[in-house]
Amino acid sequence: MLKLFYAPGSCALASHIALREASAEFKLRPVDFVAAEQRGAEYKKVNPKGRVPALETERGVITETPAILAYIAQTHPEAKLAPLDDPFESARLQSFNSYLCATVHVAHAHSRRGERWADDESAIAEMKRKAPEVVAGCFQLIEDEFFAGPWAMGAAYSVADPYLFTITRWLRFHKIDSAGYPKVHDHMQRMLERPAVQAALEAEASG
Amino acid sequence: MLKLFYAPGSCALASHIALREASAEFKLRPVDFVAAEQRGAEYKKVNPKGRVPALETERGVITETPAILAYIAQTHPEAKLAPLDDPFESARLQSFNSYLCATVHVAHAHSRRGERWADDESAIAEMKRKAPEVVAGCFQLIEDEFFAGPWAMGAAYSVADPYLFTITRWLRFHKIDSAGYPKVHDHMQRMLERPAVQAALEAEASG
Repeated sequence: MLKLFYAPGSCALASHIALREASAEFKLRPVDFVAAEQRGAEYKKVNPKGRVPALETERGVITETPAILAYIAQTHPEAKLAPLDDPFESARLQSFNSYLCATVHVAHAHSRRGERWADDESAIAEMKRKAPEVVAGCFQLIEDEFFAGPWAMGAAYSVADPYLFTITRWLRFHKIDSAGYPKVHDHMQRMLERPAVQAALEAEASG
Repeated sequence: MLKLFYAPGSCALASHIALREASAEFKLRPVDFVAAEQRGAEYKKVNPKGRVPALETERGVITETPAILAYIAQTHPEAKLAPLDDPFESARLQSFNSYLCATVHVAHAHSRRGERWADDESAIAEMKRKAPEVVAGCFQLIEDEFFAGPWAMGAAYSVADPYLFTITRWLRFHKIDSAGYPKVHDHMQRMLERPAVQAALEAEASG
């Protein structure tokens, strides 16, 4: 059975929701970030990067949210979570997820994980100071250019939706009001009505 | 016909090589970074992010290297540049490319584009100072954990190879000797022998 290594509130929520949307059979395995379990030798056998999410499958472990989301969509075609047979639409979806992963998540990480890119305390503080501005710029682009509506990629719900939802929830850490991005805000509200999203949030809160 | 917007030496080289490996028909369109064309209003109609690469197709523009590489592989199946019908192997490939995009490229960018994440000059200098250490850590993980050999993903050449090659070439900017990573170094040498790689480098040098 699939096993998702996650930490509550992390970007692993996107994969967690996607597993529920796909009606996949899976187990949840929390990784204790407070005890820095993700940097321990045992967990590094699962994911040498020391990060979540990691999805254990019968053939091996998959890491990186865009890859896990694509895997869930491709192995559960009946859930119609990606335009699998359309190379252009697949590329649009991958492009959106890649932007969330490599630009928006990275912008967010500068407020909490600055030590990845600097040792000096004042440099880390400067990244933290600027992070809300950078994140806001990303969400303005999503609102103005990339969000097709009613779902992230257009008429069809896809794995881009739980990923966008997960990162939209981080706006509160930057004291950014999601209402400033009306389409993204409305998307978040509609995501909260989905049973898969509610179940994932409940499981993380009680896990 | 496909049109690739690129800048010489940028990560667009990965998509450029992949197009040649696929024997795709395409045009090259250089974007003048010296004149900051990528931040101009005209180019932002192509890619609102103001970055390269961007691949113009008859159905629209695709951005983000992992998405462009997947599109090239999926639309040129005869070139066998990705394990298209195997969800687990596809996910492995996507995971590798996602790591290059969201972690390794980002680590590199802190040495040259620190203004993305900080305004303060000393913070930007501190990121630049630390970047070689962060990049070196990424390449150690690739060497020890992710590079399957003889090609990045194993026996079959794939779109991960031009992407790894492109980013390996950036080690020189950090004064890191690729020979410190024997598998990655050997990979770079073998890539340089491929006609598609030679043709791409020549076209960029003369473009």
